[in-house]
Formats: sequence, structure tokens, C-alpha cells
Amino acid sequence: MGIVGYGNLGKGVENAIAQNPDMELTGVFSRRPANQIKSAAKVYSMKELPEFQEKIDVMMLCGGSAKDLPIQSVEVAQYFNTVDSFDNHAKIPEYFKAVDKIAKQHKKISLISTGWDPGLFSMLRLLGETVLPEGKTYSFWGKGLSQGHSDALRRVAGVKMAAQYTLPNEEALANVRKGEQPEFKASAMHNRLCFVVLEKDANAEKVAKTIKNMPDYFAPYETEVRFITEQEFIADHQKMPHGGKVLRSGTSKDNDHQRLEFSLELESNPAFTSSVLVAFARAVFKLSQVNKTGAVTPFDVPLGFLSPKSGKELRKELL
Amino acid sequence: MGIVGYGNLGKGVENAIAQNPDMELTGVFSRRPANQIKSAAKVYSMKELPEFQEKIDVMMLCGGSAKDLPIQSVEVAQYFNTVDSFDNHAKIPEYFKAVDKIAKQHKKISLISTGWDPGLFSMLRLLGETVLPEGKTYSFWGKGLSQGHSDALRRVAGVKMAAQYTLPNEEALANVRKGEQPEFKASAMHNRLCFVVLEKDANAEKVAKTIKNMPDYFAPYETEVRFITEQEFIADHQKMPHGGKVLRSGTSKDNDHQRLEFSLELESNPAFTSSVLVAFARAVFKLSQVNKTGAVTPFDVPLGFLSPKSGKELRKELL
Repeated sequence: MGIVGYGNLGKGVENAIAQNPDMELTGVFSRRPANQIKSAAKVYSMKELPEFQEKIDVMMLCGGSAKDLPIQSVEVAQYFNTVDSFDNHAKIPEYFKAVDKIAKQHKKISLISTGWDPGLFSMLRLLGETVLPEGKTYSFWGKGLSQGHSDALRRVAGVKMAAQYTLPNEEALANVRKGEQPEFKASAMHNRLCFVVLEKDANAEKVAKTIKNMPDYFAPYETEVRFITEQEFIADHQKMPHGGKVLRSGTSKDNDHQRLEFSLELESNPAFTSSVLVAFARAVFKLSQVNKTGAVTPFDVPLGFLSPKSGKELRKELL
Repeated sequence: MGIVGYGNLGKGVENAIAQNPDMELTGVFSRRPANQIKSAAKVYSMKELPEFQEKIDVMMLCGGSAKDLPIQSVEVAQYFNTVDSFDNHAKIPEYFKAVDKIAKQHKKISLISTGWDPGLFSMLRLLGETVLPEGKTYSFWGKGLSQGHSDALRRVAGVKMAAQYTLPNEEALANVRKGEQPEFKASAMHNRLCFVVLEKDANAEKVAKTIKNMPDYFAPYETEVRFITEQEFIADHQKMPHGGKVLRSGTSKDNDHQRLEFSLELESNPAFTSSVLVAFARAVFKLSQVNKTGAVTPFDVPLGFLSPKSGKELRKELL
């Protein structure tokens, strides 16, 4: 395997490959100079990519969805089977089309949009609505660090450091679990918890007010702002925990309530996302062995292909 | 679609088909006389099966795993694509082999061992161990009515009516959720709650003692016996609720704890099992359209095949 792009996700993929004895990392490819990449693997320039066509079965695309992946994917899919975590939900159809075209032309297979959302959560939404066709699906996120909301906090005057955690609204969650199939505004399903370190001389009251009134980001939500010291921030808010739940609340014919719930509780969001990408890389390799080409998604993968075990072993051990 | 066997599961499948607008039930096939089958569908004798080869895409095998399915499956797979809920875990490899042989000979496809366990729970066990290769998987069942244990209670002298519910041991569950990856004896993971109606003049103390000391069934477990009246039994214990949880507790490279949890809470166990079977029937039809033959399991099905929606719709709506 190879890795293109070496941020949090690329590092995570390197670590995840090490947990799978049937996999081997051949190299990390980057636009940055090799001496800036702190990887145990060999580091190559992006220009060297084409030379590795016979040496790498699956290339892991670890760039960001906004700027990197739309360029990387079409470039790399000419030479390699790929896996990525493209997570701009609204643009998935367009992205799929572009990647599908290039992968088919070059007889490669590209699995797009995996990870946990999109990815495992998408799979569970699909499973939920197919096994309980009369019902409603709910997605809750958290408790988890939100980068976008933390960035928004840091743009407020007087804020030195900040972390924002998204939490499921416990009352909303309890109502879903009761089987009532409620309708919610997005803001009723989640609360926002902000940890803020103030600049010297900043006015706490004013900062809290500015945060709570920020449209879209905080105003419609139940928002709590907690002021902490820089020491506390460094001690307690350097990790990237996340998680969430997908629930399907349905009814069968005699009005019996049936509920399916899938949840993730992750101490490291990037490490888990990476770990999912790596399992799907195995599936991509197996799909390539049966001559599948073009773009695919987690919906197109038989689950058995994610495992290093044979069908026989899986039936015996896990069915 | 057709149904072979019309007990709780067969009735459930009939109801589940009615919740899926792209499906139609052609008939119920039974060894019993037609006037004993209370179905809204047409009822046929098993002898008429071969005449329906052009009229039925998928036949749902709704017999029991102990006696019915090993005979039904090889008989029916000659003529039809099939779906079943064979749940004798230890005998799955042998059953798979027998069904695979006959289905391949006749160019049919037979999906075996679906439902929720085996079925959805198996799929989540597989997903858990592939995305978190370093970790442990746990299965908890309940709160749910156990037929086998209720039968055992009814065999005790002095017992008129009885229902046994299996419950997860909350302490064991909490320890798994903490990420400690404990080792358990089976009996430490579940408690047993028994509701018993006594025969007139039966000795409650003696009955409770006999139950609690029954080897395998109750002796190794934390068991509670509650005596209730016949009226209470009829009012509160006629349903077949069940459910359970599959948990994967894993660690990623930097020792971060990552947890995946899947749970089902079902007011009607047979209705839900049926509903899962019916979603898999759609997958079987789609697999037959791409000329797949032989026996398959839930591990061999791309999740998208469970849905009536196209790949394009799924990517847009659910990914």
C-alpha cells in the first residue's frame, strides 16, 4: 500500500496498516520535501508515483475533501486502485462521476467516501431503512470535538484558545428511543459545549455573549461556554475524541416498535477513520482481483471482503 | 415471492412483504391442509411447488432449523432462489455445503442464516473486527424472551405457565464499555428472570429452588424467580420481545480506546427476523440478476443490494 498526503489521516493510516499483518506500507507520497515528513516509511515525491504501478496494490488518498481530493483522486486513479474519505456529502454524486470516469478508463477501482461518516454511519442508515422500511432514521454526533466550530470560536475577539464539543441532546435521544418517531429541528438534537481560554484583559461576559449569538454556529443551539486556563486547555483538550449514533426507529405490521442503534465512542477520531479506510483497502484489493473497475462506495462492498479471513473461516467463526 | 412454512416466521414474512411496495407474495406453500392456514395469500400444497418456477423469484424458507430447513432447503433450492434463517451456529458449515451443492447444480442462489443472529449481529461482528483488528468482540442478548428456557421452566413439577427473560448483566456491560476488554464466563454476562404461574397446591419455595439449581439452564446464572397469577401472565407475557448488543472494544496505535456498539430493541422478535429475511430476499433477486449461483451468506451481499433504491439514489440520500 501507499499513502498520498501525510496529515493526521495519513499518519493514522500508517499506524492502522501496522495493525494488519496482511498489509505492508511501501511508501508515503507528498508534495512537501521528504525531510518534513516524519514517517517510518520511505518518503517519495508525487512525481515518482507512476514508477510504483507494479509495486502498490492500493493507494490511500489522505488529503482533505475541500481542496486535495478532487485533484488527487483523478490524478492517482490513472495509476492505482484508491481509497478515500471524501466527506462533502452534497458533492458526492459529482465526485463519484469524475472518479468513476477516470478509474474505468484506466481499469482501476476507486472506493470513495469511507470512514465513519460517510462510511459506517451511511451503511447503518442503509441497513436500518431496508430492514425497517416503515420508520425514521436519526443521526446524532458526539460527544466530539468539532474543528469547524472550534475555528469559529477562535475567530471571536478576546479568545486565545478554544475547543468546541458537540453533544447529543439527551432529551431528544430519549424521545427517539421511546419509539415516538419525533420530528426535530437540527438545533434540537445537539448541544454545544465550548472551552475557552481568554486573551489577557478580555471581557468574559462579552465573549460568551458574542459566542452564544453567533448565527448558525451557536445561536439556535443550547450552548454552554466554560472559561478555563491555558494550562487546563493544554492538559485536557489536545485529543480529538468523537463519535455518534445512528438510530432507526420502526414499526412492524402489528404496530410493534423495533429499534436499531449503532454507536461509536472514539478517543481518536482520525485514528478510527484511518482504521476504517484500511479495512476498505483490503476490500478494494479483493474487488480488483475479481476485475471490478470504476468508482464504488461502501454500499458496493460485500462485508466479507473487508476481512483477511476466507469465506469458510468467516462462516465458521462469525456467522 | 413465495413462503414455505407458515408458523410465526412465515406470518411475519407475509406482513413484512406488505411493507415493501416493490414486492408481491404469490403464495404460501405448506404440508398442512389449506384450510388450516390463516393467510390472506393463496395457499398451495408443497407438491405444487415445481409449477411455480416461472412465477416466483425468491422462495422464503420459514421452517425451523432443527428439523425443517435441512430438508426444505435442498428440496426447494432445486427450483427456486431461497432465503432462510438457519440458526444452528455449529452446523452452519455443513448446512452451507449441502445447500451450495444443490443450488449450484440448478443455477439458483440460496442465502442462508440471515435474521438478526445469525444475520445482523454476524455482520456487525465482522465489521467490528475488521475496522478494529486489535480488540475484543462481545455479544449480549436481551432483554428478551427465551423459548428454550421458558420450555425448561414448564417442565418443572408444579409450574403451570412460565416465561423466561434473558437480560444482559449490567455490570459486565459497563466493564466492556469502559474499554477494559475483560474475559467473562458466559454466565457472568447474563442474568435470568423467570415469571412463573404455579399449579394449585404447588410449593413455591420448592419450585424456586428446583429452577435455580437446574444445571446449565439456571444454576450458573444470577436467576430471579417471580410468581405471578394466571391473569398477570396472560396480560403481560404473551409478546415475544428480544434484542441484544454486539460490542467491539479496540485500541488504535497510541492506545486510544475505540468502541463500536450495535444494539437492537425489539417488541416482536419474529416480526423483526422476518423483516430482515425480506430485505435479504431483494438482495438475492439482485444477485441472481448478475448470475450469482450457489449458497451465500449475509457476508457476501453488498449492502446496496438490500435496498430498492438505485446506486445513484443511495449515494445521494444516504452516503
